[in-house]
Amino acid sequence: MAEKKPSIHDIAKAAGVGVGTVSRVLNERANVAEATRTKVTAVMERLGYRPTFAARHIRTGRSQLFGFLTDQVTTTPFAHDLIKGAQARARQADRMLLVIDADGDDRVRAQAVANLIERGVEGIVYAAMFHHEVHVPKALHEVPAVLVDSFSSARDFPSVVPDEVLGGRMATERLLADGHRRIAMVTNDFLTTGYPAAVGRLEGYTQALADAGVAFDEALVREGSGNADSGYRWTHDLLDIDDPPTAFFFGTDRMAMGAYFAFTERGLHVPDDVSVVGFDDQHYIADALRPALTTMALPHAAMGRWAIDHLLTAPWGDDRSPPQRRLPCPIVERGSVGPVRPAQGATPERSLTGRR
Amino acid sequence: MAEKKPSIHDIAKAAGVGVGTVSRVLNERANVAEATRTKVTAVMERLGYRPTFAARHIRTGRSQLFGFLTDQVTTTPFAHDLIKGAQARARQADRMLLVIDADGDDRVRAQAVANLIERGVEGIVYAAMFHHEVHVPKALHEVPAVLVDSFSSARDFPSVVPDEVLGGRMATERLLADGHRRIAMVTNDFLTTGYPAAVGRLEGYTQALADAGVAFDEALVREGSGNADSGYRWTHDLLDIDDPPTAFFFGTDRMAMGAYFAFTERGLHVPDDVSVVGFDDQHYIADALRPALTTMALPHAAMGRWAIDHLLTAPWGDDRSPPQRRLPCPIVERGSVGPVRPAQGATPERSLTGRR
Repeated sequence: MAEKKPSIHDIAKAAGVGVGTVSRVLNERANVAEATRTKVTAVMERLGYRPTFAARHIRTGRSQLFGFLTDQVTTTPFAHDLIKGAQARARQADRMLLVIDADGDDRVRAQAVANLIERGVEGIVYAAMFHHEVHVPKALHEVPAVLVDSFSSARDFPSVVPDEVLGGRMATERLLADGHRRIAMVTNDFLTTGYPAAVGRLEGYTQALADAGVAFDEALVREGSGNADSGYRWTHDLLDIDDPPTAFFFGTDRMAMGAYFAFTERGLHVPDDVSVVGFDDQHYIADALRPALTTMALPHAAMGRWAIDHLLTAPWGDDRSPPQRRLPCPIVERGSVGPVRPAQGATPERSLTGRR
Repeated sequence: MAEKKPSIHDIAKAAGVGVGTVSRVLNERANVAEATRTKVTAVMERLGYRPTFAARHIRTGRSQLFGFLTDQVTTTPFAHDLIKGAQARARQADRMLLVIDADGDDRVRAQAVANLIERGVEGIVYAAMFHHEVHVPKALHEVPAVLVDSFSSARDFPSVVPDEVLGGRMATERLLADGHRRIAMVTNDFLTTGYPAAVGRLEGYTQALADAGVAFDEALVREGSGNADSGYRWTHDLLDIDDPPTAFFFGTDRMAMGAYFAFTERGLHVPDDVSVVGFDDQHYIADALRPALTTMALPHAAMGRWAIDHLLTAPWGDDRSPPQRRLPCPIVERGSVGPVRPAQGATPERSLTGRR
C-alpha cells in the first residue's frame, strides 16, 4: 500500500498511446479501437491504476461534492448536529461533503471558498455556529450557496435559521400554562449585540406575556452572557427582588445550569419551588441536570438537511429574493417545570437561607 | 451563478480539438501548437471553464485530499476538536479533508472507505469518538491510514490514543499531593467492556496509590456508566460508607457534575469539604461547574495533528509494526481540589444532612 499512484500520463506512456486515448478509454467513449482499449486497460491493471472521481468529474463537469464551510466550530458543541444533518442528506443524494473549518478570520474564509471552488464543488453550505449576520467572501457568489444559522444583510443568499421569536414564545407559554405569572427572563447575550437569539427570544417572551394578559415587568428581565456563571449570578439577583419570580426562562441551558447551583444554595427545589425552561437542548447539560431540563431544541440537523435540499435544487436562475427560512425550535419536555404554588411569591425567608 | 459547468469535452468540441489537446493545454504541456493553445484558452474563457483540481489530480495522480472518517460523531461533543486539529495540520500541508460521518454501521463504513478511495484520497484518518478497538473495513489497507482514538486488534495500522493509565495516575497523584488518602474512584464505564478509558484510568489510580504507599481499598471503587446520574448515585453511595472518601476521582466530567449535585444535597462544599478530579475537560461542563472542575484533558487536537503528520510521511514501505502512539492527557487545574482537613473522615453527621 501507499505507493505513488500512477497518473493518466503514466498509463499513456506505458501503453504507447496519447493521453486523449486513455481519457477516451476511461470515459468509455466509442471512438477507440478495441485492440487499443484492451492494451490500455491491461496497462491500467498492471500499474494498479484506479480510475478516480477526478476522471468522471472532468468528463461530466460534476464533482458530486458540496463544500461545507463552518466558523467557530471550536467554540460550540453544535457543529456535529449541523454537519450530520447535512451529511445524511448529501449521502442520500450521492454527494459528499468537503468540510472546512474556517475559524474566525476573513482571509481564511475567503481562501477556503476559493479552495472549494477550485475543487469544483457544486455548491457551498456556509454554516455559522450561532445565529448572526455574516459578511461572506465575494467568491461565494460564484457557486450556489446557502447560509445556515446565519444571513447576509443584503439577503442575497438563501438562508435558514432558527425561529428565535417563536422559540421564546413557546418557552414562555409553557411556563404560563402551568400558572406562572412572575416569569423571569435572562437573555443569552447582551441586547446591544443585536444577535437574533438574544433579541428574538426576548421578543417571543414579551409576545407570550402580552397574549396572556400578563404585564411586562422589566424588573424580571436581565441581560445574560450565556454562560453558567451569568445564570448563577442573575438567579441570585432575581431571587432578591420584591415579589421574586416563580419561574425562569433562560436563553441558554448553560445559564440554567448555573441557576440550578443558585437554587440549591437557596434551598429551592426544581420544579417544586421554582420552574425553569432553558434553550438549546445542549447535549450532556440539559439531560444531565437534576431534574433534567425542559428546553427548546435548536433545529441544527434540520437546518443542515434544508441547506442540502436547497442546494440540490440549484441552479436557481435569477432569483432576486432567495428564501429566508426560519425553522421552529421544538420544546423538549423534561422535569424542570411544575405548577405554580398558591403560596409562592409570599415567603421571603426562603430566599434568605442560602449563601452566595 | 449556478449554471451547469462546462466539461473538458465541451471545451474540446467548441474549440474543434481533441480532449487530449485540451488536457495538454490544461496541464501546460509543451507539445501543443501556440495557435491551438490560444484557441483552447479563449474557448475556456468564453464558456467560463474553471480548471479544477480534478485536472491536476489526473495529471499528478495526487488529489491532495485526505479522508477523515468518524463514527459516533453524534454522541460526543469531542469530534470538533479532533477534526479541528487534523484540519489545521492538513491546511498547513496544503491538503483538504473529505469528512465522512459513518455512524455505527459496518456497511456504511465500508462504503465510506470505498467512496474515499474512489475520490483518490492520499490517506485516511479513521477516527473513533471514544477509545476502543475497531474492526476496520478491509479496503482501508489500500491507502495509508491512521487510526485515531482507536486501534485494531492486529495492530496493523498506525494508531494514536490517549494514555489512559498515565491520565489516571496523574489525576490520583494530584489528590495525593494535597494530602488525601481516602480517594474514591468511579470508572467511566463498566470494566467488563474492557474499554481502555475504564480499565486504564483505574489502573493508573491503582499505580498512583501503590507508589504513594496507600493501600488499595475496593470499598472506594465503583463502576460508573459515565453519565451524570451515575456520578450522582455513586457519590451518595460512597458518602454512606464507613470512613468515607475525602476526595473523588471520576472517569468523566459528567459524573463529576452529577456528584456536585449530590455534594450540595449533603451540604458538602467543594473543595473545602471534598475534593474532586474529573476526566475529559468537557467544554461547558468542566468550566461551568461551581467551583470549576480540575480535570484531565483528552488530547483530541493533538491526536488529529499526529494523524495528519503521520499520513504526510507515507508511503511507509513494508512496516510490519506500525507505531502505536499514546499521547498524555494534561491536567487542567481549576478549583475543585483542596487540602485534606485534619478532621475529615471523622464527622459522620455531615453526610446525613442532605436528602436523596
